[in-house]
Amino acid sequence: MLSFASDYTEGAHPRVLRRLVETNMEQLPGYGADCYCLSAIEKIRTACQCPEAEVYLLTGGTQTNAIVIDTMLDSCEGVVCAATGHVNVHEAGAIEHSGHKVLPLPEHQGKMDAEELRNYLVNFYQDENHEHMVFPGMVYISHPTEYGTLYSQEELTALSAVCRHYHIPLYMDGARLGYGLAGSQTDLTLPDIARICDVFYIGGTKVGALCGEAVVFPRHNAPAHFITKIKQRGALLAKGRLLGVQFDALFTDNLYIEISRNAIEMAERMKEGLRERHYSFHLESPTNQQFIILNNRQMEQLKERVDFSFWEKKDADHTVVRFATSWATTEEQVNQLMEALDATAV
Amino acid sequence: MLSFASDYTEGAHPRVLRRLVETNMEQLPGYGADCYCLSAIEKIRTACQCPEAEVYLLTGGTQTNAIVIDTMLDSCEGVVCAATGHVNVHEAGAIEHSGHKVLPLPEHQGKMDAEELRNYLVNFYQDENHEHMVFPGMVYISHPTEYGTLYSQEELTALSAVCRHYHIPLYMDGARLGYGLAGSQTDLTLPDIARICDVFYIGGTKVGALCGEAVVFPRHNAPAHFITKIKQRGALLAKGRLLGVQFDALFTDNLYIEISRNAIEMAERMKEGLRERHYSFHLESPTNQQFIILNNRQMEQLKERVDFSFWEKKDADHTVVRFATSWATTEEQVNQLMEALDATAV
Amino acid sequence: MLSFASDYTEGAHPRVLRRLVETNMEQLPGYGADCYCLSAIEKIRTACQCPEAEVYLLTGGTQTNAIVIDTMLDSCEGVVCAATGHVNVHEAGAIEHSGHKVLPLPEHQGKMDAEELRNYLVNFYQDENHEHMVFPGMVYISHPTEYGTLYSQEELTALSAVCRHYHIPLYMDGARLGYGLAGSQTDLTLPDIARICDVFYIGGTKVGALCGEAVVFPRHNAPAHFITKIKQRGALLAKGRLLGVQFDALFTDNLYIEISRNAIEMAERMKEGLRERHYSFHLESPTNQQFIILNNRQMEQLKERVDFSFWEKKDADHTVVRFATSWATTEEQVNQLMEALDATAV
Amino acid sequence: MLSFASDYTEGAHPRVLRRLVETNMEQLPGYGADCYCLSAIEKIRTACQCPEAEVYLLTGGTQTNAIVIDTMLDSCEGVVCAATGHVNVHEAGAIEHSGHKVLPLPEHQGKMDAEELRNYLVNFYQDENHEHMVFPGMVYISHPTEYGTLYSQEELTALSAVCRHYHIPLYMDGARLGYGLAGSQTDLTLPDIARICDVFYIGGTKVGALCGEAVVFPRHNAPAHFITKIKQRGALLAKGRLLGVQFDALFTDNLYIEISRNAIEMAERMKEGLRERHYSFHLESPTNQQFIILNNRQMEQLKERVDFSFWEKKDADHTVVRFATSWATTEEQVNQLMEALDATAV
Repeated sequence: MLSFASDYTEGAHPRVLRRLVETNMEQLPGYGADCYCLSAIEKIRTACQCPEAEVYLLTGGTQTNAIVIDTMLDSCEGVVCAATGHVNVHEAGAIEHSGHKVLPLPEHQGKMDAEELRNYLVNFYQDENHEHMVFPGMVYISHPTEYGTLYSQEELTALSAVCRHYHIPLYMDGARLGYGLAGSQTDLTLPDIARICDVFYIGGTKVGALCGEAVVFPRHNAPAHFITKIKQRGALLAKGRLLGVQFDALFTDNLYIEISRNAIEMAERMKEGLRERHYSFHLESPTNQQFIILNNRQMEQLKERVDFSFWEKKDADHTVVRFATSWATTEEQVNQLMEALDATAV
Repeated sequence: MLSFASDYTEGAHPRVLRRLVETNMEQLPGYGADCYCLSAIEKIRTACQCPEAEVYLLTGGTQTNAIVIDTMLDSCEGVVCAATGHVNVHEAGAIEHSGHKVLPLPEHQGKMDAEELRNYLVNFYQDENHEHMVFPGMVYISHPTEYGTLYSQEELTALSAVCRHYHIPLYMDGARLGYGLAGSQTDLTLPDIARICDVFYIGGTKVGALCGEAVVFPRHNAPAHFITKIKQRGALLAKGRLLGVQFDALFTDNLYIEISRNAIEMAERMKEGLRERHYSFHLESPTNQQFIILNNRQMEQLKERVDFSFWEKKDADHTVVRFATSWATTEEQVNQLMEALDATAV
Repeated sequence: MLSFASDYTEGAHPRVLRRLVETNMEQLPGYGADCYCLSAIEKIRTACQCPEAEVYLLTGGTQTNAIVIDTMLDSCEGVVCAATGHVNVHEAGAIEHSGHKVLPLPEHQGKMDAEELRNYLVNFYQDENHEHMVFPGMVYISHPTEYGTLYSQEELTALSAVCRHYHIPLYMDGARLGYGLAGSQTDLTLPDIARICDVFYIGGTKVGALCGEAVVFPRHNAPAHFITKIKQRGALLAKGRLLGVQFDALFTDNLYIEISRNAIEMAERMKEGLRERHYSFHLESPTNQQFIILNNRQMEQLKERVDFSFWEKKDADHTVVRFATSWATTEEQVNQLMEALDATAV
Repeated sequence: MLSFASDYTEGAHPRVLRRLVETNMEQLPGYGADCYCLSAIEKIRTACQCPEAEVYLLTGGTQTNAIVIDTMLDSCEGVVCAATGHVNVHEAGAIEHSGHKVLPLPEHQGKMDAEELRNYLVNFYQDENHEHMVFPGMVYISHPTEYGTLYSQEELTALSAVCRHYHIPLYMDGARLGYGLAGSQTDLTLPDIARICDVFYIGGTKVGALCGEAVVFPRHNAPAHFITKIKQRGALLAKGRLLGVQFDALFTDNLYIEISRNAIEMAERMKEGLRERHYSFHLESPTNQQFIILNNRQMEQLKERVDFSFWEKKDADHTVVRFATSWATTEEQVNQLMEALDATAV
C-alpha cells in the first residue's frame, strides 16, 4: 500500500546501498577503525567547515539522544526541551532511564523560545531551594522539530546566546537534519549549525541510510573516553563499516543534501495539491512533514488506501494527520495520494 | 592485509546482502513490524523447534547481553558467569552500568562447572549475611566460549539442573552460536539449546550478517513490555527491516549453519597446518577460534604480514595469539597464513 | 529567632528523646532486628488495623519516595503525580536518578483529580504509539499535599478505584501524615488509608522524630528482598534502633496523633489571628501549613523578626509565604508571630 | 545477652546523647545549615589540620561509599579494591547499583599491595582492548580493614604514589577510623590521612554515634553540587542537626579518639586472655576486631552465652569467629567473655 506514514518506511538510497555492496568483501578492522568510517568523518568535518570536529557514528536516534545527553550531563542535571521534544514524549523514557530529568518548556509549533528559556533559567537560579531541584544542564532542540518547523538563524543564535551565558551546551537533534537544510526558505546551513550549536547529530536513518546518526562535537568537547561510553551503552557496532560506508556515501558528491531536496520538492507539490483542494493545515511546515486536518469519516476511508500517521485529535469530528515525504518519494506517489484524497472526500 | 583477527572483519554473506538489495525499494512499516522481521522470527522458531518462542532482533552482542540481563534480573540480583565471560571483561562494564553486579566463578577453558555453580549457590544461601549481598539471579554462559570451547549436552544439562533447582534462568550468549552448532564433535543442536536454556541469542554479526542478534525466549518468558524496554535502552531500530531481512536470509535454506560449517572446515585445515608445523596450542578448540603460542620474535614479524589478535602473555618470551576463521575464510587465505608463518619461523 | 519556617526546625518530641536515652545502654542487634523495631512495627500494624501489614523503617522522605517508587515500578514505568508533587519538584530528581519518569497531571491546590487521572490513562492506552512512551506504573499523592490540603475519603476512594481498574498501585506520601490525620474536618483515618492505598508512609521526621519514616505495605505487597534493596540504596541503618525506638515511642499512647493535634490547634489559632487582621489566604488549608499573601515591603520587614518560607510570587508587589506550625509550636509563639505581623503592617 | 557481635550493637556515647538532649528544644534550620553542623565541620577541619577541607555529614557507611564513589567516578570508570573490600562483598551491590564495576585485586589480610596495584594499572593501559574495559577511576581501601588490620604510613604513601601517578583518587573508608587511629602501634594520624588520601570518611556509627559518617575532601575536590547529589540519592537529612550535634560532640575535647582508645584497651585485654588460654588467632589485628579459631563444638556452646560473629569456615571442624570491642566495652564484659570461653572449653 502507498505509504506517507513516515520517512523511515524506505530502505537505503541506492547509491548508499551500492557502496555497501561494493565494499562488502573487503576485510576491515572493527569498532569504527576502518577506512570508511575515517573517510566519512573527514567528509562530515568538511561539510561542517569544522576541520577539528569530533564525529562519532551511532545507530539510531533515541540511542544517540540518550548517549549524548547522559554523557554530557552531570548526574544532578537535566535536559531542557520544548514540551513536544522527542526526548520528552516518544523515547520510552530513555533519558530518565539514564538518570536525568527532562525539563519541559512551552512549545511553539515544536520550537523553544529563547526568552522563555532565559526566564526559566533566571527563575531557577533565583529560587532559594534550587539546590533541591534538578539543575538545567543542557538545552535540547530538534531541527526540523517534531512538527516539521525550523529555527531561523536568528532564533538559533538567540537560544545559543542564552545557553552560553549560563554555560550549558545547546544540543540539536538532527534526526531529519537533511530535510531542514534543504527546507524551503531556511537560512541555516550545516556550518552555521556547527558554529552555533555545541553538539548535534546528522540523521541518517530518515535521510537515505538503513541506520546511522553522526554525532558532531564541533569544539573538542566530546566527553572523555567517549568510545568506551558508547560501548558501555551497547551502541558500538563490531562492524562499524556498516555506518562508515553509508555516511561516506551520503557525504560524497553532496548526496545527503540532494536527496533531501527531493523530499522537500515532493512536500511542496503535496502542499500545493492540498491547498488546491482546500484542506486545512494544522500549521505551516517548510519541511517534509505536513500536518493537515481531516474529518474523521474521510480519515477512516483514507486509511484503506494510504498509510499515514495519526497525530492528534483536533475536535470531536476532526483529526490532525501527518503525511511525510522522503528522499524516495516520487511525483507519481504524490499524485496517487491526491487521487486517494479525492476518492474519499466528502 | 590478510586478516585472521576476528570473525567480524568481513561484510555480510552475499546471499544476505542480496536480500537487502532485493527488498530495498519496498515501503515497510518500522520498528520490527515488517513482513521480513515476522518471517525471520517464524523461521527461527522452526529452527529451534519451538513454535511458541518469543524472538526479538537486536543489533549487537553487548547491547543484547545488557538488555537481556537487565530486564530479567530484579534490582538486587547479579549475573553469575565464568571469570572470562565477555560480560565480565570486555563489555566496558555494560552490565554494571545497568545496575547489576557480575559474579564471577572460576573458568575452565572459558567454561563454568556445574558443581562449582552449585557450591556457590549453596554457600550463598547458607551465609547468614546474604541479605547484605548481591543475589545470584541468572547464570550467563557463552557458547562457544571466549576460548572457542563448547559445552556438551551433558554439561549444559547439568548447569540447567542447578539453575532450575534455584529458579534462576540460564542464559546463553550465542554471539558465535553458528560456529558452535557447526563445531566438530558437538552434540548440541539448536532445539537442544532451546530446550535446555531459558534464554539465548543467535549471533548474526559474527556469522554472516552486517549486524544483528536474535534473542530467543523459548517458554513465554520474555519480560513484560519488552519492546518498550528495548526502545528505552536505545536499541529499537526504526528500520527494523535491516535486521529482519538479514535473519530471514540466514534462516532460509539452512544458510546460517552452512556458512558456519565453512568456518569450521577452514579452522580444521588451519589446525592441521599448525600441527604439522609443531606449533603449540594454548588449548583445544573445536570451533573457529584457535589459540596458539608464538615466541615473541616470530609474533612481531608475523604482524607485518597478517592481522591476528593478541590474547595474553604466556611467559616472558611467548605470547598466546588468536587466529579466527569465519564464513568467508577461503582455503587460499589459510594457505597464505601458513606461508606467512613459515616465512617468519625461527 | 522565632521560626515558622517549617516543621523540621524542631528536635524530637521529649517523650521520643527520653526513650532514646532510656534504651541507650542496651546492646541490641543491628539492621532493624532489635526489639524496638519489632515493637514499633507491631504498634503501627495495630494503629492501621492491618495486622498483616509489612512495615519498614527508613530515614527520610526523599529516600523513602525513591526507594518505594523504584522498587515497585518496572523499568519501563513512570509515576503519575500532581504537577506540584514533591517528587516532581523538590527531590533533586531522585526519581529520575533511579531511572523513572515522573508523569505530571494538573494539580488542584496540590491535589490530583480522579477524573483527570482516568482520562490520562484512557488516552495513554488508546495512543497507538504508547509502546514508545513511559507506562504509568504507579500513582503518587501526598497527604497532606505540599499545599497543606487533604483528600476526603470520597476523593481518595475515587483515585483508588481508577488505580485498581488499571492495576497500578496508589502510593501516599505521608511526610506530614500526622497533621493530616489530626486535620480539622478530615474524614480519613489511618485504617482508612491502609484500606484504600496500596502503600504509604507515616512521616516521623516532621512529626516528632529526629528522623524516620515508616513505610506500610498493607497487603503482602512489599517488593521481594526489600531489605536487600534498602541496603543496596544506602538506606539500611546499622543501628536500626534509632528508628525503632522513636516509632515505638510515637505509637505508644497515641502520641503521634496527640502531638499532631497541637500543630493543628496552633494553626487554627494562627488562622484566626490572620483573619482578624484581614490577611489574604492563598488557599484554605486545614493542616499545619498556612499560605498567606504579603506585600513585599512587609515581607522584607517581617524577615528580620521571624523565619518563614517564601512560597511563590503572587504579582509584582505581593508574595505567597508559608507559616508552618508543628507539634512543638506554643501559643506564645503564635502570639509573637501576630505581634511581629502587627509591628510590620503597613 | 553479652554481645561482642559488633561495634554497632551499642547506642550513642553518653556525652553524644547528652548534647542531643541539651540542644533538642532549639529551633534550627534544616538540611545541614544549622550551627552544630557548621561547628562540627570546623572541628573536623582542625582535627585534620586541613583548614580548607570540605566536610559533609552523611548517615551510614554503605550510603557514604556509594555516594562518594558514584559522584567521583566518570560513568566508564570502576573502583579498585582488595577482594575483601566491604564495597565488593557486603553492600548488596550498592556500587554496581550506581553503575560502576568493583575491580577486585588480591587481598593480604584485608589490605591492598601497592606493587600489585601498580602492575594492575600498567597492564590495564598496555592492553590493546582497554577501551572495551572498565577504566580504573578510584582506589578504595578501608582502614581498619574488614580484618581489623591497618596500613602503615609507608604502605599508605606507596598506594598514594601509585594513585597520583595515574591521577586517580585514593579513597579511605573509615567506618572504624577511630579504632584505627587509636590502634596499637599505628604511625598514621588523622592529619597524615588527610594529607595522603584524596577523600576519606570518619565513621561515627561504629564509634560513639547513633548514626553518621563525616566525609572529608581535603583539597577542594568535592564534586560540584555535592549537596544536590546527596539530596538526589536520598541522603540529605531534613534535620541535619542530628548529625551535626553528634559530630560536634565527638570532636569536642578529643572524645572521638578517647573513646576509641577504650575499644583498643579492651581488645588488648581480650587478646591477652585469649593468648593465655592458647586460642589460635586467624591473623594479628591491632584494632578492635579480633578473629580467632574455635572448634565447632565449642562455638555452638558459646553461642548460647555470648553473641559474636561467624566469619568463615576454617576447615571441617573449625571456624573463624569475630569478637569486636567498642567504646562501650567494659573490663567486666571482657572477663565475662573469658568465663564463657572457659565454661565451654573442651
